[in-house]
Amino acid sequence: MNLILALDFGGTKHAAAVVASGEKHQLSDKRVFSPPNPHAQSDLEIMLSLARELLAGREPRAIGVSFGGPVDATSGKVRLSHHVSGWENMPLQEILEREFGAPASVDNDANVAALGEHRYGAGMGYNSLLYITVSTGVGGGWILNDRPWRGIEGMAGEIGHVVVDPTGPVCLCGKRGCLERLASGPYIAQQTKDRLNLHPDKGKLLRSLCHDNLDEITGLMVSQAATQGDKIAIEALETAGWALGVAIGNVANLINPQRFILGGSVTKAGDRFWNAIHHIARATALPEVHFEIVPAALGDKAPLWGAVALAEDVLMREQGRAGSREQGEES
Amino acid sequence: MNLILALDFGGTKHAAAVVASGEKHQLSDKRVFSPPNPHAQSDLEIMLSLARELLAGREPRAIGVSFGGPVDATSGKVRLSHHVSGWENMPLQEILEREFGAPASVDNDANVAALGEHRYGAGMGYNSLLYITVSTGVGGGWILNDRPWRGIEGMAGEIGHVVVDPTGPVCLCGKRGCLERLASGPYIAQQTKDRLNLHPDKGKLLRSLCHDNLDEITGLMVSQAATQGDKIAIEALETAGWALGVAIGNVANLINPQRFILGGSVTKAGDRFWNAIHHIARATALPEVHFEIVPAALGDKAPLWGAVALAEDVLMREQGRAGSREQGEES
Repeated sequence: MNLILALDFGGTKHAAAVVASGEKHQLSDKRVFSPPNPHAQSDLEIMLSLARELLAGREPRAIGVSFGGPVDATSGKVRLSHHVSGWENMPLQEILEREFGAPASVDNDANVAALGEHRYGAGMGYNSLLYITVSTGVGGGWILNDRPWRGIEGMAGEIGHVVVDPTGPVCLCGKRGCLERLASGPYIAQQTKDRLNLHPDKGKLLRSLCHDNLDEITGLMVSQAATQGDKIAIEALETAGWALGVAIGNVANLINPQRFILGGSVTKAGDRFWNAIHHIARATALPEVHFEIVPAALGDKAPLWGAVALAEDVLMREQGRAGSREQGEES
Repeated sequence: MNLILALDFGGTKHAAAVVASGEKHQLSDKRVFSPPNPHAQSDLEIMLSLARELLAGREPRAIGVSFGGPVDATSGKVRLSHHVSGWENMPLQEILEREFGAPASVDNDANVAALGEHRYGAGMGYNSLLYITVSTGVGGGWILNDRPWRGIEGMAGEIGHVVVDPTGPVCLCGKRGCLERLASGPYIAQQTKDRLNLHPDKGKLLRSLCHDNLDEITGLMVSQAATQGDKIAIEALETAGWALGVAIGNVANLINPQRFILGGSVTKAGDRFWNAIHHIARATALPEVHFEIVPAALGDKAPLWGAVALAEDVLMREQGRAGSREQGEES
């Protein structure tokens, strides 16, 4: 039995799993939260001890890693983390290979989650898809021709900073009307708060959910209020759904993939949100361009399952190499 | 010597070329205009006689075809032509294979032009690129991982109907602010005309170029007037450049390709147009996302050279198959 070690370095929590290669249904995994003021070194130590605990003395044959930030997938070096300092140019693949004596493969979380959904989730059997996560931020990962497409610098899938409305509100990145500015959880909350400030007579439900402290409004509260018919909440979610629909319809025209898979906390916002996405995406794509938009199947385990897939691919390459060595074909 | 037959079925003109496989510098080609009220059958006959003339009794070993409309590249069947009737479901590949006794490969003009620029033009040595043609319409073709990316239904590359400004003017397709609506030649002319109607005191130069008949204004006249400093013309070209810049920057974030190659008559509109594209594309893409935007190298011969590349690939596959038959590896 070939043992696979799968690791998911998140912004605020880390998860690890050990699974037998070929196993598709069970993942014995463990997750821990980062301590306050995390640093690369402490995060790495937390993850190593988590992995050792799960391995319990056994040796993995391959390691797959999802990292919450830009990675050079070829060398397995982390470029940086947007949340945690000390990760700059960390040779994560090399460190793990030395630590566990097995080959490793590292990629960023959106690409790895896309791979997870493709191999074990809502993308099974589809050879081209865009996975979009809508949560604190908005990001994406591609599968084209059954393989991850990372772009020339590993930056492909940055759908959060695609401009959908050039006259829209200013995003953290400095541009106007980025998808992330219109559809991410914190911005949905902020838009709602701004509207409530403008209309002190409206949004009774929202005000009670946040105990009249508008700064405490979250995307989740907006979803709850929308389900119960709150107009301001509904408007905020429909704006987010509209922005996602425009982005998805544009991408359908550009790349013509089979499926869009949407994950992340905001995608739990209910029918009104999903209806807006479907309606606007369909209206934005050309009539001849067909596609499906479906919810992610693996939830927050997508990166961990994707890490399993990365490790399976490493094993496959190793076995291919061993096979050709036996046949004496390798020089 | 293996002879290649390359065919380019355009909307208003057809071109054919005969070239020796492996030849990269000379294309003995001929082009003819379609008669008025063209039909699929007459277009096909024109092309066949053009090809026979160039072949002069010799037999091609492979045929590559660029077709000005949607094609099922797998079967080599034309879906339809937007300009000429009678093409619906025409088995073009099969017809040509029967006629010339050689294997053929057919794809739509934007994909084939992208392949031409990739193999023989401004895309040589680049493994991922988007070719964009800006002319009567706006279209595109992808090369990803050194191969054409056509999408699941052959519809990839439809950048002309990507929405760049949801509050913009209405496009022929019914949506607002499509790239084609803002950047194609006829729409640049129309925008200019609308502005001239609003400002009867402005645009002396443009008015003289069209002999005071505003309906006769063309994209070319707008370019000429802009070069000589006409403000209305400059504004129209800067709007087109802005729209292309937004679209390119968004695509860079989404797909992270190495190069954007721009061809078509509108791209000859001068520095102001190109500067707007470069400036806005750079501002729209994330700072970490790098790319180049360059003019096409092959001009209106890109589809013909792309057809040569399609035929070269057919030859390569044939030779691969012959090779494995000799080795007895094929079942």
